[in-house]
Parts: sequence; C-alpha cells; structure tokens
Amino acid sequence: MWKGLINEYKKYLPVNEDTKIISLSEGNTPLIRATNLEKIFKGIKIYLKYDGLNPTGSFKDRGMTMAVTKAVESGSKAVICASTGNTSASAAAFAAKAGIKCVVIIPDNKIALGKLAQAIAYGAKIIPIKGNFDDALDIVKKVSENNPITMVNSINPYRIEGQKTAAFELIDQIGDAPDYLFIPVGNAGNITAYWKGFKEYRDLNKSSKLPKMYGFQAALSAPIVDNKVIKNPETIATAIRIGNPASWDKAVNALEESDGYIDKRSDEKIMEAYKLLARSEGIFAEPASCISIAGLKFAYESGKIKEGSTVVCVLTGNGLKDPDVAISLSRDLKVYENDYDVLEKVILE
Amino acid sequence: MWKGLINEYKKYLPVNEDTKIISLSEGNTPLIRATNLEKIFKGIKIYLKYDGLNPTGSFKDRGMTMAVTKAVESGSKAVICASTGNTSASAAAFAAKAGIKCVVIIPDNKIALGKLAQAIAYGAKIIPIKGNFDDALDIVKKVSENNPITMVNSINPYRIEGQKTAAFELIDQIGDAPDYLFIPVGNAGNITAYWKGFKEYRDLNKSSKLPKMYGFQAALSAPIVDNKVIKNPETIATAIRIGNPASWDKAVNALEESDGYIDKRSDEKIMEAYKLLARSEGIFAEPASCISIAGLKFAYESGKIKEGSTVVCVLTGNGLKDPDVAISLSRDLKVYENDYDVLEKVILE
Repeated sequence: MWKGLINEYKKYLPVNEDTKIISLSEGNTPLIRATNLEKIFKGIKIYLKYDGLNPTGSFKDRGMTMAVTKAVESGSKAVICASTGNTSASAAAFAAKAGIKCVVIIPDNKIALGKLAQAIAYGAKIIPIKGNFDDALDIVKKVSENNPITMVNSINPYRIEGQKTAAFELIDQIGDAPDYLFIPVGNAGNITAYWKGFKEYRDLNKSSKLPKMYGFQAALSAPIVDNKVIKNPETIATAIRIGNPASWDKAVNALEESDGYIDKRSDEKIMEAYKLLARSEGIFAEPASCISIAGLKFAYESGKIKEGSTVVCVLTGNGLKDPDVAISLSRDLKVYENDYDVLEKVILE
Repeated sequence: MWKGLINEYKKYLPVNEDTKIISLSEGNTPLIRATNLEKIFKGIKIYLKYDGLNPTGSFKDRGMTMAVTKAVESGSKAVICASTGNTSASAAAFAAKAGIKCVVIIPDNKIALGKLAQAIAYGAKIIPIKGNFDDALDIVKKVSENNPITMVNSINPYRIEGQKTAAFELIDQIGDAPDYLFIPVGNAGNITAYWKGFKEYRDLNKSSKLPKMYGFQAALSAPIVDNKVIKNPETIATAIRIGNPASWDKAVNALEESDGYIDKRSDEKIMEAYKLLARSEGIFAEPASCISIAGLKFAYESGKIKEGSTVVCVLTGNGLKDPDVAISLSRDLKVYENDYDVLEKVILE
C-alpha cells in the first residue's frame, strides 16, 4: 500500500525518523503508454506521466507534502501563499490535513471563483488585495518573515525536494531514465526538480543515463526562450502564465547540463495538442500540460528526436481544473425530436 | 508499474490471453487513513478509498475499462449511453483510447455543459433529445440492439465485473476486508460490485471475513430505503439522483447477505460531511461521495459501529466534477487595501 511520497522516498528527502509526515497519499501517479500517439509519431516509445491524478489534481502536491511537513516540524501555525490556482489548492489541502491554517493572498483583478473552488472547499482564508501578483507576493514574504507562518510559494526550498520524486517514480516505473523529457515551463520549479531527481537517481545507480530536458513555454509567456522578463504574460495555459520565473537560472542550468532544449508554442498549438491528447489517448489534462504534447509534435517534426528513443511527456494537471476550456470546444448542441428513425441515422452518421 | 485493473486482476475477470485490453491505467487509487476523522469518531479505524483519483475522476472507470474492452472484443464500432455525468465522461475517455466512437444521448432538460465538459473534451458525439432520461435510455437500448454499437449504461453486465476490483484493491491494501463498508447508493451498481468482490476474494482466502455493507441514499432520492420508485428524485448529490435503481434487487441482496443496513441522509447532512471531509482530511470529493461520511457520522452516533472496528468509506468521485458546490460555500470576498499592518492583522485573526 502506497503511503505517500515522503514515506516511499524517505531516504532521499530532508526528513528524519521524528518528522511527522503530512500526506494525502500523493505521488504514485500513472505512467501511461501512449499507444495511439505512437501511431502518429512513429519510431519512438512515448509515455505520459499523468500527475493530474495527484490528490488535488496537480503536481504541486509533490512539493506541498514536503513544504507543509517541514512547516509543521518548524512549529508554524499556518502556511501562506500568493496564488490563484494550483498552488493555493494544494497548500489548502495539506494544511487541512495538518490541522493548521492556510492563507491565500490574491490580486483583486484575479478573483476567479472557479479557480478558487478547491481552496474554498478546503477552508483556506482567501484575502484579495488591491494590487497585482507581485504586491500579493510581497505581503506573503513579509508576513512569513515576521510571524510563525511558512511561505509555501515556489521559493520555499522544500517544494523542489518533493517534486524531484516524480523523476524517481518515472525511473522506477520504466526501469531506467527516458531519453527525452518533455515538460511545461512556467515558474521553472518542475524542470529544476526533475533534473535534480534524475541526477540523484543516476548517482545512486538507479538509472544508466540522464534524459535530455526539452522544456516548452507558451508563446506570449516565454521569458526564458525570449531571454527577457515578460511584463504582461498571456496564455490560455494559465498554470504557466509566468513572466519572471522563480527558478529561471536553475532551468537554464538543467537545459545546458542535459544538452536539452527550450522553445515556445502558441495557444493555438496548445489547443490542438489538448484535443489530440484527449481524443487519441483519452486523457484530459489542463492546457498547460498539453504544451508537452505540442512540444513533442514540434520536436518530432523538426527531427529533434532520435529514432528508437524513449520519450516521457509530463502532464502536470487535471483537465477538470479548467472545464471552461473544454466547453469552449463544443458548438451549440442541436436538440432532436424523439423519433427513433431520425436518431438512428444521426447516431450512425 | 501498475498496468490498469484488468491486467492486474486478469485471473478474476472475463478476459483471456487474446483479449485486447483498453486501459487508461485506472484503479490503484489511494486508500487514505483518516487520522483526523478518527479524532472525532473515536475507537474505530477509518480508511477512505478515494476512487475520485481514477483517470476520469470517478469509480465509473473501473467498470468502463471492462465494458469497452468487451465492446471492442465483440466487434463493436461504437459505444453508446444515456448519461449527463460520470458515465458519459468515462465512456468517452475509454472509447477515445480504443479508437471507436462514443455517442451520448441526453434529455434536453439536462443540458448542463459543465457536467459534459469531459465528454466534449474526449470528442464524444452528444445528442440531446426532446424527452426525459427514460426516453434517452430507450433510444440507447434500441440502437444498440439493432446495430454493432454497445450500450455501456449500468445494465451492461461487464461494468459490475470491473467495479468489483475496488473490493480486491481494498483488501490488498489493508491486508484483510474491513468490518464495515460505507457506500453511496444511487443506481446500486457499486454496492453490488463491492459485495461481489468481497465474496470472491473471501472464497479465494484473500480475506478472513466479509464486511457489513452500510449503504446510504439521499433523502429525496431514496427508493430502496423508502421501498418505492421515486418519480422526481432530487438532491445536490447528482451522481446518486436516481429514482429507480438498475441494480435494486442486487443491492437488497448485498444488504441482507452482509447483515448490513441502508438509510438516507438529507442534503444538509451531505453538505456538512462535504465540508468536514475537505477541511479535516484535505480531501475534495463530489457531494455524492460525501454521503459515505454523513452515513459514518450517523451510524457512529447511533451506536451501529462496534468499538475497535475497521471502517472503509468509499469516495466515488472527485470534487472537481462539481466546483459550483464548493464555490457556493464562499461568501463575497472582501477586497483589502494593500496596507501591510492591516493585512497582517487580518491574516493573524
């Protein structure tokens, strides 16, 4: 019985026997062979690491179990973050399990209740402020410096420690590291964490090789690709709508060390990949995740994948996080009379 | 590496070596120790079987992998169902993976696009008809009788075969059957399937005992409890809003054979349990799932659980399926000025 990723990978994480572990049984997410994508992208082996099946629906749970565990260990009575999406959902869930408070600061122009549904359900204290995301983050930093409250935004160093277990799992599931890892890049914490995990497992002889890291950003939110801070990043892939990544340098390092590659894809290409993934593989992932698939298509067509290679695409979040994007694919549904002959024809069409 | 529930439990399922298995790596869902609920309901051991972490977010995937696998084996070129919720999502996903068509017939008064987001994403053909749910079901039955199209509604017998694996998993995870199983009852297929699974595993000596089955229906959708067909069932727990369950007799049989018990809980109690589960255990389940927790509370307080027992509550679906219910818990969010001193006070309150 899987006991959560800290218990499973305790030896490689900053905990000891006395640490009280705060877990929701995160991790152990499916690695799915993309048998239908392999018919399109011939000559390579394709796996999907579906981290949208974590307890709160995104890979953030991997880092949050570590961050909240360490917050409790340090005596914190609350966690705090600036977030309108996956981070707040994950922080609120683990805080609930830990029995401590979770405070979420959001900019007043980003009050989208749909994105906050989980934080509301888990009972987080949500505080909108007049200001932008950076203002919210400044409040979070200052409050956590002055009080026994732990900041759980990306700069919390334990998040990367938890997230690196995704690389461990991959290797344990396949039996070795893949040749290429396709991964969405927003704040760049996940590409950093995967690379750390791959290196640590290789050093432990758990794998024979290191993958090339292939990162992808949304076209209008591509600070690393464009090599400049983007003041007003835009993309339908809200989970990677980041103009100034917290782990920028570390991502560049992962790309260089792995002989990898980073590029950007348009929202149109992301949506093409979103449909392709759902309709060929039966997997419903949030738009940000689908840039891994858009990236795979682009790299494959540009000859950037060696024949016979094993590829893993990281799917970071569940499509249910953002149902409106799916609904936008449907045209108006025509209502039919309840007439068998007519309906049979329509059904068979 | 988990290869989906048919591959894992092949020996106990109606497949053979030649069967092409259609899988999304369903099953293997977390069994979570409810450490905080145990502080409220003292003297018993409580586990949560979180089937909302299946690929499409509900337990339906367990039955659908079997139903679609058998549909393909029989030469069907499409699957069809009448459903506005979890069944259509699951059918559409597995049909996509199988490369066959999925048709969803819905009554025209139940066109809620939010509930159909997944079916839309997975590319199902959605056909609203003038009529009610029974009319839709009649079309589905007739079309599947006259064409190489498989009906995958609850009366498809393979669904129960797949779903029984949840009982197998539970026993494999705990090491024995629990003393009590708390389970939502709508169409009554799941209680039927669990009971079948428990009996089969006990007969294989994989467990030493059988649990008592404790089923719960929503107060205004409680045909089995009230012993009559409910013409217009109502409840916030839409996944169990059923007035005339397909597996009625089998559910009654499970209750009798297991020396179990069935009762009903109001929507108010369901919502209390929804909040309790999210805010004490950090688990966000759809309202129908939470009737397991409302039932646990009721049974515990009525002295219907023996001290020292092991209890499993089945959580059938992900809370993300129904975000509006979570949002309804939030009052209007007050927007604050960006003033550190004021905000620090509000945060610490």
